[in-house]
Amino acid sequence: MRELIKDYAPPGTAPGALTAPKGEAGQAKIHLLEYRGEQVNTVEIADLTHLQQQLADRYPSSAVTWVHVVGLGDLKILQGLQDLFKLHPLAMEDVTHLGQRPKAENYDAMMFVVLQHLAFLKNEIQTTQVALFVGKDFVLSLQPLGPDLLEPLRARILSSRGRLRERDADYLAYAIIDIIVDAAFPVLEDFGERLDALEQDIVGRPSPRIMNTLYRLRRQLLRLRRVLWPQREALSRLIHEEEGLVSDEVKVYLRDSSDHAVQAMDVVENYREMAASLLDVHISNTTNRLTDVMRVLTVIATVFMPLNFVVGLYGMNFDRSSPWNMPELGWRFGYLMVWGVLLVIVIAMLVYFRRKRWI
Amino acid sequence: MRELIKDYAPPGTAPGALTAPKGEAGQAKIHLLEYRGEQVNTVEIADLTHLQQQLADRYPSSAVTWVHVVGLGDLKILQGLQDLFKLHPLAMEDVTHLGQRPKAENYDAMMFVVLQHLAFLKNEIQTTQVALFVGKDFVLSLQPLGPDLLEPLRARILSSRGRLRERDADYLAYAIIDIIVDAAFPVLEDFGERLDALEQDIVGRPSPRIMNTLYRLRRQLLRLRRVLWPQREALSRLIHEEEGLVSDEVKVYLRDSSDHAVQAMDVVENYREMAASLLDVHISNTTNRLTDVMRVLTVIATVFMPLNFVVGLYGMNFDRSSPWNMPELGWRFGYLMVWGVLLVIVIAMLVYFRRKRWI
Amino acid sequence: MRELIKDYAPPGTAPGALTAPKGEAGQAKIHLLEYRGEQVNTVEIADLTHLQQQLADRYPSSAVTWVHVVGLGDLKILQGLQDLFKLHPLAMEDVTHLGQRPKAENYDAMMFVVLQHLAFLKNEIQTTQVALFVGKDFVLSLQPLGPDLLEPLRARILSSRGRLRERDADYLAYAIIDIIVDAAFPVLEDFGERLDALEQDIVGRPSPRIMNTLYRLRRQLLRLRRVLWPQREALSRLIHEEEGLVSDEVKVYLRDSSDHAVQAMDVVENYREMAASLLDVHISNTTNRLTDVMRVLTVIATVFMPLNFVVGLYGMNFDRSSPWNMPELGWRFGYLMVWGVLLVIVIAMLVYFRRKRWI
Amino acid sequence: MRELIKDYAPPGTAPGALTAPKGEAGQAKIHLLEYRGEQVNTVEIADLTHLQQQLADRYPSSAVTWVHVVGLGDLKILQGLQDLFKLHPLAMEDVTHLGQRPKAENYDAMMFVVLQHLAFLKNEIQTTQVALFVGKDFVLSLQPLGPDLLEPLRARILSSRGRLRERDADYLAYAIIDIIVDAAFPVLEDFGERLDALEQDIVGRPSPRIMNTLYRLRRQLLRLRRVLWPQREALSRLIHEEEGLVSDEVKVYLRDSSDHAVQAMDVVENYREMAASLLDVHISNTTNRLTDVMRVLTVIATVFMPLNFVVGLYGMNFDRSSPWNMPELGWRFGYLMVWGVLLVIVIAMLVYFRRKRWI
Amino acid sequence: MRELIKDYAPPGTAPGALTAPKGEAGQAKIHLLEYRGEQVNTVEIADLTHLQQQLADRYPSSAVTWVHVVGLGDLKILQGLQDLFKLHPLAMEDVTHLGQRPKAENYDAMMFVVLQHLAFLKNEIQTTQVALFVGKDFVLSLQPLGPDLLEPLRARILSSRGRLRERDADYLAYAIIDIIVDAAFPVLEDFGERLDALEQDIVGRPSPRIMNTLYRLRRQLLRLRRVLWPQREALSRLIHEEEGLVSDEVKVYLRDSSDHAVQAMDVVENYREMAASLLDVHISNTTNRLTDVMRVLTVIATVFMPLNFVVGLYGMNFDRSSPWNMPELGWRFGYLMVWGVLLVIVIAMLVYFRRKRWI
Repeated sequence: MRELIKDYAPPGTAPGALTAPKGEAGQAKIHLLEYRGEQVNTVEIADLTHLQQQLADRYPSSAVTWVHVVGLGDLKILQGLQDLFKLHPLAMEDVTHLGQRPKAENYDAMMFVVLQHLAFLKNEIQTTQVALFVGKDFVLSLQPLGPDLLEPLRARILSSRGRLRERDADYLAYAIIDIIVDAAFPVLEDFGERLDALEQDIVGRPSPRIMNTLYRLRRQLLRLRRVLWPQREALSRLIHEEEGLVSDEVKVYLRDSSDHAVQAMDVVENYREMAASLLDVHISNTTNRLTDVMRVLTVIATVFMPLNFVVGLYGMNFDRSSPWNMPELGWRFGYLMVWGVLLVIVIAMLVYFRRKRWI
Repeated sequence: MRELIKDYAPPGTAPGALTAPKGEAGQAKIHLLEYRGEQVNTVEIADLTHLQQQLADRYPSSAVTWVHVVGLGDLKILQGLQDLFKLHPLAMEDVTHLGQRPKAENYDAMMFVVLQHLAFLKNEIQTTQVALFVGKDFVLSLQPLGPDLLEPLRARILSSRGRLRERDADYLAYAIIDIIVDAAFPVLEDFGERLDALEQDIVGRPSPRIMNTLYRLRRQLLRLRRVLWPQREALSRLIHEEEGLVSDEVKVYLRDSSDHAVQAMDVVENYREMAASLLDVHISNTTNRLTDVMRVLTVIATVFMPLNFVVGLYGMNFDRSSPWNMPELGWRFGYLMVWGVLLVIVIAMLVYFRRKRWI
Repeated sequence: MRELIKDYAPPGTAPGALTAPKGEAGQAKIHLLEYRGEQVNTVEIADLTHLQQQLADRYPSSAVTWVHVVGLGDLKILQGLQDLFKLHPLAMEDVTHLGQRPKAENYDAMMFVVLQHLAFLKNEIQTTQVALFVGKDFVLSLQPLGPDLLEPLRARILSSRGRLRERDADYLAYAIIDIIVDAAFPVLEDFGERLDALEQDIVGRPSPRIMNTLYRLRRQLLRLRRVLWPQREALSRLIHEEEGLVSDEVKVYLRDSSDHAVQAMDVVENYREMAASLLDVHISNTTNRLTDVMRVLTVIATVFMPLNFVVGLYGMNFDRSSPWNMPELGWRFGYLMVWGVLLVIVIAMLVYFRRKRWI
Repeated sequence: MRELIKDYAPPGTAPGALTAPKGEAGQAKIHLLEYRGEQVNTVEIADLTHLQQQLADRYPSSAVTWVHVVGLGDLKILQGLQDLFKLHPLAMEDVTHLGQRPKAENYDAMMFVVLQHLAFLKNEIQTTQVALFVGKDFVLSLQPLGPDLLEPLRARILSSRGRLRERDADYLAYAIIDIIVDAAFPVLEDFGERLDALEQDIVGRPSPRIMNTLYRLRRQLLRLRRVLWPQREALSRLIHEEEGLVSDEVKVYLRDSSDHAVQAMDVVENYREMAASLLDVHISNTTNRLTDVMRVLTVIATVFMPLNFVVGLYGMNFDRSSPWNMPELGWRFGYLMVWGVLLVIVIAMLVYFRRKRWI
Repeated sequence: MRELIKDYAPPGTAPGALTAPKGEAGQAKIHLLEYRGEQVNTVEIADLTHLQQQLADRYPSSAVTWVHVVGLGDLKILQGLQDLFKLHPLAMEDVTHLGQRPKAENYDAMMFVVLQHLAFLKNEIQTTQVALFVGKDFVLSLQPLGPDLLEPLRARILSSRGRLRERDADYLAYAIIDIIVDAAFPVLEDFGERLDALEQDIVGRPSPRIMNTLYRLRRQLLRLRRVLWPQREALSRLIHEEEGLVSDEVKVYLRDSSDHAVQAMDVVENYREMAASLLDVHISNTTNRLTDVMRVLTVIATVFMPLNFVVGLYGMNFDRSSPWNMPELGWRFGYLMVWGVLLVIVIAMLVYFRRKRWI
């Protein structure tokens, strides 16, 4: 359950110390995008000097700058960005500690937002941490190595679809948040299908493996909840931000994202309830199966026990010279009589069980 | 469990893009109704130019305009309405994404309300999403294809029953909300009858199928709750709206609707508790049935096992020439004696079980 | 479970329409009581003109007027009262819809309070809805047909016991509320005795019927809770009322009633917990009983199975001419030896089971 | 479960009517204590005139007066105190109705506090209700008949230990509250030891009686909670009192008491969780025991059933004149062969069960 | 469960009385550290006079003073510190009563913070109480005997790593809190590994001992929660402190600590849910095992019972002289026919069970 704990520096480390996430030693890639109305400019940055220069030459001066970093393994770059944009060391530490709880915080003239992007890969829920710094005229976004999650947004800006290029940095931030929040819905839909499949198994083809499947689903629901619950709070904090970084107009958009986050959370809560109900059905089924097994045993045993007694009775070796000792054995139709007795017993038993609705 | 997730645009789509709900390709129908006191005017609108013209000719100028759209499949009409009434694109997007969580939101000079109308059809709970835009002198309501849910209200206005025609757009909005909120009660009443029937089955005629019925009911309760819980919030937000769109007098009426919503929610919560109690009774019944089965087996087995031992004993073939080998077999009344022993055993057993209250 | 849903008008009915509760077609009775200090005047009113006249002649002018209506079946009277006291139509509608959630609401210059009077009748919980309109100098109370719940209070006023006659309408309202709130305690006491009886049964004389009793009790607890929980809120709203209808001095008294309501609610919550605990004990008892049954079966079966094997063994018919075929049968003390073997088996088994603490 | 309901006057009784608690007909004892710095004066009061006189002669005028009443059976005394200190009749009614929920309330120039003192006596939790009226320069405390709970505090004042004598009435009230709040800890400690003992029984020596013990403990936990939960609230209300009856300095002390109350409540909540966990362990143990029993039965039965079949087979009486009828019976080593077969069956069974880890 | 209750003075003790914790009679050690920028001075204090002198000589005057006390057994020293720093007696009492709930409180010009340091030692969770007094220019920290928890921080200050020496007392307090809060993560990581191991056992190798392990884990989770839950509150209070003791800049750091505390709490809550899910899986496994056992018994018994009946049948001793008595015994292939019947029975049974999916 290591996955439930965020990365952390060993206790006693000085706060704000940067460490690369595990397995991220590769070179980070930096995408720079500047736009304002008709003008748009995109460039892949090789090193920080290049970036610094680009930022200085910004044209037009009212342009929105978006720096997107993929890969957190190059601490020099992170340190450079921290100095360049004057980021708070604690925020930068949170960027490198993956597995953070989603949150939004105010640092002086900047909003710092951490979100978790959800995906369903190889039957497991994958979370990718995306961190955002939102300033007056720039957005700095950072994600660990892997497929670039914001590629579709960059394409949208370049092809000038949507209202994006007319707007300021806060709307860009909203657009990024919107992509990450909405990524939950396909995951939830997949999940719902798996719950449906489980439901069909439980109702129709009970098997002991069901319990393990149910357990795995509940564990994944817990993970979904861990990500979605605080995301709601983070968005609400953005909406109620009062430093003027987010305009009222963009807040209306963020309210919509917040609404989506609430709906996603709602679905998770409903899934949890369904899973609990399914557990009850499964347990009840198990007991029913046990009762069925016992009923068969009981019917068979109670039918044959008296039969065995009767046939055992006439297997006794009493001395037949006494007329009182088992005269039945000497009767002409003794054997048929025994069969008659056995039949009566069997029929009586069956009638009794039929009345009890056991057969 | 697809039903638990609202419609959504694929992540990465530009916000505010309109898409028709699944299976709604038909032509939308538009009802226009204008009234003020004695004057009332109703007309079915064929296309948007017609509507535009009608709105321009509005007479008297103080009239309340109600535009009701049935069918969300014609995107041109939706786009036209959006331009005509200056609706926010995000609100319009919510209108076409069915399965929304009920909510009420402020958009500039308008209230936007989404509610879910409940009905019990073909043994399943059906929800129909109704969206309202409430302005100073108009109400725009939209619902997907299907029977016109607000037909009775239009009839009431035309026949001038109730206080409706004297009042403003906010009261009309209340009247629409009232119909949708109160639709929950007949559904809850039906549901209560089904719970009562289940209760009788559980107490009187236990069967393994009960668990599945109970499961289905719990699942439906969850759906009811999903709709009714946020509806409460939405109404409360309308009551505390402070932009002046809703007058204090109408707020008193909305408070009543809110009260009904709370009562409906209350009933759902109580049903949930009853369902949980019924589950406990059912599980206890199952265990009791198992115990009953086992008791029968135990009584039969413990009565016949000693009997079988006794008759087996005298079936042994020891050499009778030794006087120590089963002299009983030679006794004159040996057989009767065995019967006596058997009877004593049976009676002792029965007395023992009677004392233990097993029979 | 119809009882859980309040009466409601069919959806689509105009708000504020009055309908008589089911089975209340009788003539309503109206008691009028006016008092101020030494002066007191009581009269049974036949029709509304009479009431109107009485109210006009009010003497002294500072008198408190209390109109108590028993029976809600005469809509003309209700309509007349509504006009006379200028009651809000929605409030009046709530009066006739029995089964309301207790509440207190402000209507202009009036408080409107709905409470549910509890009683334990014929082994069932009975609720009677009492509605109050409290104005500056009058109280109008309404209850459905049945025994007059406020008779004792009228007697107290007439006999001048207590502080009542010196005080204003708000204190009268408090006195009415006090009677209704305190009616919960004897019901809870009865209920506690039934829980105690059930506890004794569960601990001492377990039987399968217990589950049904427990279920009925839980269902009744739910009903108690439904009434008592919102009653708390209603009282709290009265205490924090700010229109000046309730004086600070009377608020101290209402605080006491609120305290009683909280205590009643507390008791219900505790009963719920006790019922849950009792359920656990009962289920554990059931499993224990099953284990007991199985233990008896196991002991009997495991003792007799080897015995049956041994006696079956010597019932085989091997040809005794071979010296290797069951020479035991020819031994002089073979039979006694078998008995010895059987005894050893039985004793060994019993020792084994004693060690396992099964017998 | 009578104990869960506070005493109450029959519904319809005029509010504020005094009735003696059950079994308290004895003469009440009144202790008067006056102190200020070096001066201290204690006297046992016989009747109210005496008390009145004492209070009039108060010396020095700045002295703090503490009147402690043990026994609530003498209504004349209670009435006298009510008049003397101008106590609110509703507060006085609460004093005589034992079993109150702890609370703190403001009555004009006085605080009224009700607390429940906890003790563990004869294996049962005992609660003693202590009521306090705190004025500017006096404290009136009342408790039912029994050992004087505040004796240690009086001794402390007389012997001048602690800071008490330098301080005002509010600190005296704190000192009383402190004693009552802290009395919960030894009770909780005792309780913890009993839970530990139960834990050891459940883990080590399971028996069906455990369920009843566990039930009794849960019932007592409920009672503890009923007392401790509202006590927290009462203290918080005292701390936020704003009438100036409690000085800021004493509020610091009350905050400490409140902290203790929170800790006591915390412990109760933890105990409740532990009890729930223990219940789970116990139920799991019960099922395990059942499984063990069944396993023994199954092993024995499945071993002996084939054996019995084999020996029964050779007990058949087929006519040996046909060579096809049971030639084995005529074999020289037939009997030994049967033993061989039986041994093989037994060994195969045992190997099978060993593999299944049943033996 | 003694561990759940904090130390307490016997009820009736005067508030603020100091008592040494159990087993702490040793001499307390006092570390004094003064720093400001480049200057740093550390000294081990032997007695209080020494400390007093050191504090008087403070140089430079703007230095931050940190006094860390290890060992609470020397009451004279505690009393001396209380006088020297003017600590509130109630706070000092809390320092010596170990097992406190974490909290932060304001005492005049000082913050008083109590935290619990977590560690995993010898398979048990160990908590060490650390108390802090934070003033304008000093921090006084106290911990019971044992390894010095703050040694790493002192080393960091001396070696001038981090930003510590440039900052004021509030940052020092933060640094101490940070160490204690972050100590939870390694404990939680260990705990997660143990839960994972348990999960593997439950899914793969079920055994009755699992229940006890699970119980122990739940008990430890409860303890973790007891410490982590209020820690959150304490940090939140520090962040919202308004007396000016904590600068805004340090509050940003404390917000980070608070964030970590929330994350730790979150993990504990998730563990609790996982433990509950594991319990469900384990219980379901147990029932499945029981069902398996019963199924084997039922299959064996139902196969052999008819076989035993058949062979018993032909063991009867009817007089063969009558042609109606068991003519089968005389048939040439009677014995083979019986074997045929037996085989048919066995095969029919096996087919039946295969169809029921029991084998």
